[in-house]
Amino acid sequence: MEHTFLQSVTFKEGTLYILDQTKLPTITEFLEITEIEDAWDAIKQLKVRGAPAIGIAAAYGLLLGLKNAPEENFDSFYGVLKENLTYLETSRPTAVNLFWALKRMDERAKLEREKPVAEIKAALEEEAHLIRQEDEEVCRSIGEHALTLFHDGMTVLTHCNAGGIATAKYGTALAPIYLAKEKGWDIKVYADETRPLLQGARLTTWELMQAGIDVTLITDSMAAMVMHKGLIQAVIVGCDRVAANGDVANKIGTYGVALLAKAHNIPFYVAAPTPTVDLDTKTGHDIPIEERGMEEITEGLGKQTAPEGVKVFNPAFDVTPHELITAIITEKGIIKGNYQEELPKLFI
Amino acid sequence: MEHTFLQSVTFKEGTLYILDQTKLPTITEFLEITEIEDAWDAIKQLKVRGAPAIGIAAAYGLLLGLKNAPEENFDSFYGVLKENLTYLETSRPTAVNLFWALKRMDERAKLEREKPVAEIKAALEEEAHLIRQEDEEVCRSIGEHALTLFHDGMTVLTHCNAGGIATAKYGTALAPIYLAKEKGWDIKVYADETRPLLQGARLTTWELMQAGIDVTLITDSMAAMVMHKGLIQAVIVGCDRVAANGDVANKIGTYGVALLAKAHNIPFYVAAPTPTVDLDTKTGHDIPIEERGMEEITEGLGKQTAPEGVKVFNPAFDVTPHELITAIITEKGIIKGNYQEELPKLFI
Repeated sequence: MEHTFLQSVTFKEGTLYILDQTKLPTITEFLEITEIEDAWDAIKQLKVRGAPAIGIAAAYGLLLGLKNAPEENFDSFYGVLKENLTYLETSRPTAVNLFWALKRMDERAKLEREKPVAEIKAALEEEAHLIRQEDEEVCRSIGEHALTLFHDGMTVLTHCNAGGIATAKYGTALAPIYLAKEKGWDIKVYADETRPLLQGARLTTWELMQAGIDVTLITDSMAAMVMHKGLIQAVIVGCDRVAANGDVANKIGTYGVALLAKAHNIPFYVAAPTPTVDLDTKTGHDIPIEERGMEEITEGLGKQTAPEGVKVFNPAFDVTPHELITAIITEKGIIKGNYQEELPKLFI
Repeated sequence: MEHTFLQSVTFKEGTLYILDQTKLPTITEFLEITEIEDAWDAIKQLKVRGAPAIGIAAAYGLLLGLKNAPEENFDSFYGVLKENLTYLETSRPTAVNLFWALKRMDERAKLEREKPVAEIKAALEEEAHLIRQEDEEVCRSIGEHALTLFHDGMTVLTHCNAGGIATAKYGTALAPIYLAKEKGWDIKVYADETRPLLQGARLTTWELMQAGIDVTLITDSMAAMVMHKGLIQAVIVGCDRVAANGDVANKIGTYGVALLAKAHNIPFYVAAPTPTVDLDTKTGHDIPIEERGMEEITEGLGKQTAPEGVKVFNPAFDVTPHELITAIITEKGIIKGNYQEELPKLFI
């Protein structure tokens, strides 16, 4: 088996390639998309997931909608662009990165308005590639900083999927693991399955296996025992939001893993691109926690496994307080110590 | 809906009633068994589970095999008894309680050998009822002792199923909850789903709901958050074995819950009938931990949820060190403090 650092969204000679994540882990299939409608569908049907990957797919999707756009004058071209852009926005209206990427494409088009339309089209393709490229660089940079905290031969535990397939490449929490592999280091990974939606079992193990990395799947309830056996030298996870005091919201279960890491004196790292750092959110208490449907727990895998009518509590995220976090790793460097003081320096 | 404290194995007028636990939580069905072959099958097919419940079912099953046994003389009757007993032993050869219960029936038969066979049959029915009755008393006694640590209005978290359906009645960890309900106390329960086999989701929620107890299902990874929110005032779990120093082996995930309880200053109780206390096992390190098949994790619910060929670690149990255990609750009383010194007193 050839090992590859997978890229879940790429664009080459007019074709958008999207790894169909809904078929993982049993089927590895890349969609070959040449029409904007199919890009819209891939986003809508969650075939592409992960905030950065969605943004990248949207930017490339827009290009597909512009290939036959009129080239006579800017206004008629721009009319088609706006139409396509509004259309793509409806594919996943809550995805912030989708809107961010499309807005960037829109602004680039306006910036180039004096040029012939053919050149504007080329500029837009460049912009879409830039969006992808910049995300890859952010991930790689997080990985390089994180790698200074790792060493050859270590074993790392992760929770959920903050991996390459959710981003342009490398992922956030998994970035140092891929970079360690590139360096020839021997890094092993334990992946929590991450109930209820099993992102660890379905996605993290899959993408690490693609890259030839030694990964062992455990249930969430086994992390404590694995730590107690001395098998884990570091925990690294991604995050959804970092508050100004360093509290971190991430996939449900992260807080428990952080407590277990502390009890076993294992460092607990959070990989966080700077856009997830939200200085307007004072502490973790100010982060709203989404509660999701009970069926994710009672029939998460297609079969009813709890009694009809059972009460269920299903928070999608939890908050890990800053005092349990050894370091927050951003693309601009490693933050530790007094997060309240250190985090604002990212934005100077 | 009428609420009942369920008994999963009962015997009335020549019929053995067994709750078919393989159909839970979606279908509640009691098997009505009048032939020993069907009792054998119920044990073999795990329709009855839980060490005490299996022993009780075997004792009653033996009665079914004896109903047409010859009554002319002891020797020919005892020949049939031995044959049936050996047959029942093959239903689940690793179940210690099965052998223990059948041995007790055998010894009672020999004790009564001078009596007419009809009277021996009556004595054996009495013995089977005694086995059931004594287990119910052990569970009730554990519940009463545990109840002295509980109070009206509290919320308790439990892991796996140490419940009534695994025993004659009441269960071990769930016994105080049923007794609190009998007293009219308002006790709420959070039940960990308990991956990989989901005993919490499938069984604990089900039996508590039958008894009209307020139970909320969570994934194992949510226990930390629920504790952090201040929702839990005590944790109580069952156990498979207690070592001489108070270390406890129980369902995988128990150790993690104990660590989380400690981090939140929540008392952590273990319900343990004295036969589970094994003074010949010095510490938890001496308890062998069974590793089970990977398919419990990768396709635990009938659908493949991890990549083909993924490495899996699947220990069935973990060990909770004694220093994390606030008290061990037996039918003979509550043990706390220096377990090494206190546990032997149970056997004086």
